[in-house]
Amino acid sequence: MIYGGFWGKLLRVDLTNKITKIEEIQQDLLKNFVGGALLGAKLLYDEVLPYTEALGAGNKLIYTVGPVTGTAAPCASRLNIATKSPLTGALANSLSGGFFPVEMKKAGFDAIVIEGKAKEPVYLYITDDKVNIKSAKKYWGLDTMDTQLYLKEDLKDHNLRISCIGPAGENLSLMSCIINEARAAGRKGIGAIMGSKNLKAVVTRGTKEVTIKDPGKFKNVVKEILENFKKCEVTYPFFSKTGTVSTIEGVSELGVFPENNFRDTGVNDWSVPLGSSALSKYNQTRNPCYRCPICCSQVRMVREGKYAGISTEGPEYETIYSLGSMLGIDNPEVIIAADRLCDQLGLDTISAGVTIAMAMELYEKGIFTDTAGMELTFGNHDIVLPLLRMLAYKEGFAKIFADGTKCAAQRISEQVNDYAMEVKGLELPAYDVRGLKSQGLNFATSYTGADHNRGYAIQEVSGIQIPHPVERLNIKGKGALTKFNQDFAGTYDVLTMCQFPMQSALVHIAQRVSADLLTVVTGFAYTEEDLWKLGERLNNICRMFNVREGFTRKDDVLPKRIMEEPIKQGLSKGERISQANLDSMLDEYYLARGWDMSGIPTPEKLKELNLEFTIKDLNRSANN
Amino acid sequence: MIYGGFWGKLLRVDLTNKITKIEEIQQDLLKNFVGGALLGAKLLYDEVLPYTEALGAGNKLIYTVGPVTGTAAPCASRLNIATKSPLTGALANSLSGGFFPVEMKKAGFDAIVIEGKAKEPVYLYITDDKVNIKSAKKYWGLDTMDTQLYLKEDLKDHNLRISCIGPAGENLSLMSCIINEARAAGRKGIGAIMGSKNLKAVVTRGTKEVTIKDPGKFKNVVKEILENFKKCEVTYPFFSKTGTVSTIEGVSELGVFPENNFRDTGVNDWSVPLGSSALSKYNQTRNPCYRCPICCSQVRMVREGKYAGISTEGPEYETIYSLGSMLGIDNPEVIIAADRLCDQLGLDTISAGVTIAMAMELYEKGIFTDTAGMELTFGNHDIVLPLLRMLAYKEGFAKIFADGTKCAAQRISEQVNDYAMEVKGLELPAYDVRGLKSQGLNFATSYTGADHNRGYAIQEVSGIQIPHPVERLNIKGKGALTKFNQDFAGTYDVLTMCQFPMQSALVHIAQRVSADLLTVVTGFAYTEEDLWKLGERLNNICRMFNVREGFTRKDDVLPKRIMEEPIKQGLSKGERISQANLDSMLDEYYLARGWDMSGIPTPEKLKELNLEFTIKDLNRSANN
Repeated sequence: MIYGGFWGKLLRVDLTNKITKIEEIQQDLLKNFVGGALLGAKLLYDEVLPYTEALGAGNKLIYTVGPVTGTAAPCASRLNIATKSPLTGALANSLSGGFFPVEMKKAGFDAIVIEGKAKEPVYLYITDDKVNIKSAKKYWGLDTMDTQLYLKEDLKDHNLRISCIGPAGENLSLMSCIINEARAAGRKGIGAIMGSKNLKAVVTRGTKEVTIKDPGKFKNVVKEILENFKKCEVTYPFFSKTGTVSTIEGVSELGVFPENNFRDTGVNDWSVPLGSSALSKYNQTRNPCYRCPICCSQVRMVREGKYAGISTEGPEYETIYSLGSMLGIDNPEVIIAADRLCDQLGLDTISAGVTIAMAMELYEKGIFTDTAGMELTFGNHDIVLPLLRMLAYKEGFAKIFADGTKCAAQRISEQVNDYAMEVKGLELPAYDVRGLKSQGLNFATSYTGADHNRGYAIQEVSGIQIPHPVERLNIKGKGALTKFNQDFAGTYDVLTMCQFPMQSALVHIAQRVSADLLTVVTGFAYTEEDLWKLGERLNNICRMFNVREGFTRKDDVLPKRIMEEPIKQGLSKGERISQANLDSMLDEYYLARGWDMSGIPTPEKLKELNLEFTIKDLNRSANN
Repeated sequence: MIYGGFWGKLLRVDLTNKITKIEEIQQDLLKNFVGGALLGAKLLYDEVLPYTEALGAGNKLIYTVGPVTGTAAPCASRLNIATKSPLTGALANSLSGGFFPVEMKKAGFDAIVIEGKAKEPVYLYITDDKVNIKSAKKYWGLDTMDTQLYLKEDLKDHNLRISCIGPAGENLSLMSCIINEARAAGRKGIGAIMGSKNLKAVVTRGTKEVTIKDPGKFKNVVKEILENFKKCEVTYPFFSKTGTVSTIEGVSELGVFPENNFRDTGVNDWSVPLGSSALSKYNQTRNPCYRCPICCSQVRMVREGKYAGISTEGPEYETIYSLGSMLGIDNPEVIIAADRLCDQLGLDTISAGVTIAMAMELYEKGIFTDTAGMELTFGNHDIVLPLLRMLAYKEGFAKIFADGTKCAAQRISEQVNDYAMEVKGLELPAYDVRGLKSQGLNFATSYTGADHNRGYAIQEVSGIQIPHPVERLNIKGKGALTKFNQDFAGTYDVLTMCQFPMQSALVHIAQRVSADLLTVVTGFAYTEEDLWKLGERLNNICRMFNVREGFTRKDDVLPKRIMEEPIKQGLSKGERISQANLDSMLDEYYLARGWDMSGIPTPEKLKELNLEFTIKDLNRSANN
């Protein structure tokens, strides 16, 4: 093979017919679509027909890594999983870190396309070129930790890395995720895709060495990256020591840390009971991803009381919100135990928490009280763990809530929609976007729904003001900013590299250094401009996937509460994003994107981005 | 090295001074004391001074394997851990299976002697001859599963095998055990020994091949063993399919399955709610020890309700009793969840359950009701998991019960002794010995206390009637039978081989075939008679260790309830073992053993067994 970093190999797995084959990936496809989210989106676009039922055999599950994965570059052990989301109906890209991505890469594949549906539970066992579809009957039902444990024990190799689902995915919960080690490829119900295919796990072991086109220059680029990590005021001082939880102080100060299902944002200061200091008391050990010198992953443990002995990798900032402040729970120990349980059940912590918060508000308002005696009041610690279990197993009244807020509203009544904090069906992450306008615009427009990782407006909550200073509460200029953030995030979803250090330590040089990295690894020549194009190409092909499914401007919305109810207290008191505000931001955004005012990419833009093959699908949107 | 199977190497670890050294083990020591429980007892006898405080730096923790461990012989991956028990004050031998024993053996050691006390938490990291004492600060507090997980992750080798303690051992609970994988070296509080030494774990990885003196003959012996496994009516039909739980039917039929702290034995038929069929519904997968073709270890899982998603390796027959019938709990799901929790906490399921049963009886009788509102009534499912956690952490009122029944009685009042189902401090396993006289005599005389694995009277509960037919309720002849059973069990604790198949599949040829096995592996010549001597030597050296500590006939006792209260219902109704019965059996037993009537070995017997070095300590007993 001529180029470095890539194998040029795709593993295709037909679960219906139990056939696996290895296919070549053309070099021009690799150059333009590289890997990760973009390669995944391209394959999904080409191979999944419009209006395919997400949980049907026609949907596909596509694992991709990037050319840098498995090299000595730091923070590059990322896996992308692409599929049509059963929660949103849109394209889903979910990423996770850990060790699985490197193992998959070293097995010799850039992509794994899983299609069809097995008759009975199976797992996919990949050791280099040797690929088997094996019965997973005896693992079906096991939680994600035990699944990994017994697969390793039975296969007599504990150095295997495993991506799997727990009971939530098996039971087709639209809040389920896919777990490798204790890392989640989360959101958008992708665990249910594995469940619908009767696929319990993907097991990998690779022994191949990833080649680098120019090892000498590669060393220099890696050195530059590491030096920037050291200089950064966030990376080591905060992420290394506290992990993502360190975000809470800034967000709380701005009064945009959501509370009690966004009803009471700004009323209480959650950064005291659930902040960096409070959580750090539970720090036990750390568990970095492959070749990550930073290690944001804190293992926290409860040392006494009801949850004594329970440890978890996390809880992350988002979980402190979803299973904490959103439920009115200020006890980190409950959150630690709940976080661990979610990982074991394979349940997305954000969606699960936000959905419980909705149920609590409905219960308190007397709209939904048929809970078999379970008191769903904000702050009721005792119900969290039992309810999470019920959600994963779709038991009792929890069946109504087991597929997230949007489905719950459909199952209860239209009125309930007012309490569903979701966009395109995806539950909101830990930002009250009434006081973070660009983050709000991102939630409204992201191709995956309300997703903080697909265009995080870091400028609004931190000192980082790139590309230019940002006024948090001003709706002006947010269109271009959101495009910037989405394309920036997209670039790293494509590469596949961790966004955290890119956003903080490398943001001022990220696209340049990444272009250098990609060039020296692959041997293809990439410019800084090319890197931006990768992110833009990703956002456009994904938008086109959604357009082909019937999505238009009408779907770029925000929850009613965000638009109509002002924030009650704190530094963002009185803020909301009205329909007029949103419209104004959307106009700006579509303009910045080169899309028309119905939110559809123009043929010119698609051509510019080498996405000509999607132009034929513009007609489809016109028919909607 | 001349002989096969042995390395002739002992690893000595001085935790106080952080010094490790490798010592030679003399060949005559290996020939006469072989390995496992006997080599461990010999080292302990020589190295631990009389009246050493069990939880002090002077006590030692001795890991031993046997010459057959790590060879292709089945069922030979057994580890013995010897120490002075903090629970009984007597010598403790605890064995466990799994994979750790083979890994330790392949690292090149027959024995590891751990002495002194580390200032701060440490773990021992052994990879072949490379031995390090490393800080375990970041693992201190983690449960046994997470300890193994993060050690492997941090050491970047998931094929390591780890023996460790959980919170119970760290908190010096005298009901704590040592866990490798999900296997427990249980009973006698040995987890607290590790805890007292600030030793969190022993981590091993071995790459050496165990040599066999005569590989050709070895193959034939192994073949004979495997053929006998196949012929046996118990091994595959029962142990393979149901595991140890299959014991409950026979024991229940005889009316000797204990219930509600032995108060109500025979009243209910527990073999329906907690029997083989009931438990098999939860069978999920299996996890055999290294090279075990039988695999009694069933992984069981709860699939719905409160404990949905919780799996455990087990519960074993003993746990069905201790966390089930003893607590009046007929719900297998509670027991599965409790069993898993005990493994994670590093808590001995038998001692923990029997102690909770005692607390329940005290609560119901109004003797101990200071439980902060926790209702300790028989059959109360809800308290089991919270209480187990409190015991491991010594929290609240559970502190009184956290060190077993004997300590609890000492802490409450003398009257409470009547409800403590223990011998020498060790809680009774799942046999109401009022209707199993030899098993009762074994519990009274075993060097470890009421221990079913040190001389199991299989004749009384099964069709196996070797050496001769046995009348279960007749106290006559039980002395010789108990000696037979103890020496038989002892042989396999020495070898180190699993007792299960020896007792069932091989009992008629066990000593002969084991002599053959040992001979072809080591090159030392062993006869059938030599094999019996190994078991007898073990029971005598351990007895002498205890004699040196002041134990005599006065300590060969049974709980008051066994001696004074007859069984209420069932096939053993009216049975008890009166003091006169016990005395009569003890006389017979001591005679069969060649001991004097105070239960002290005679110098002649000790000479006969090559235990001359213990004779000097006979004087010590005379001074008591």
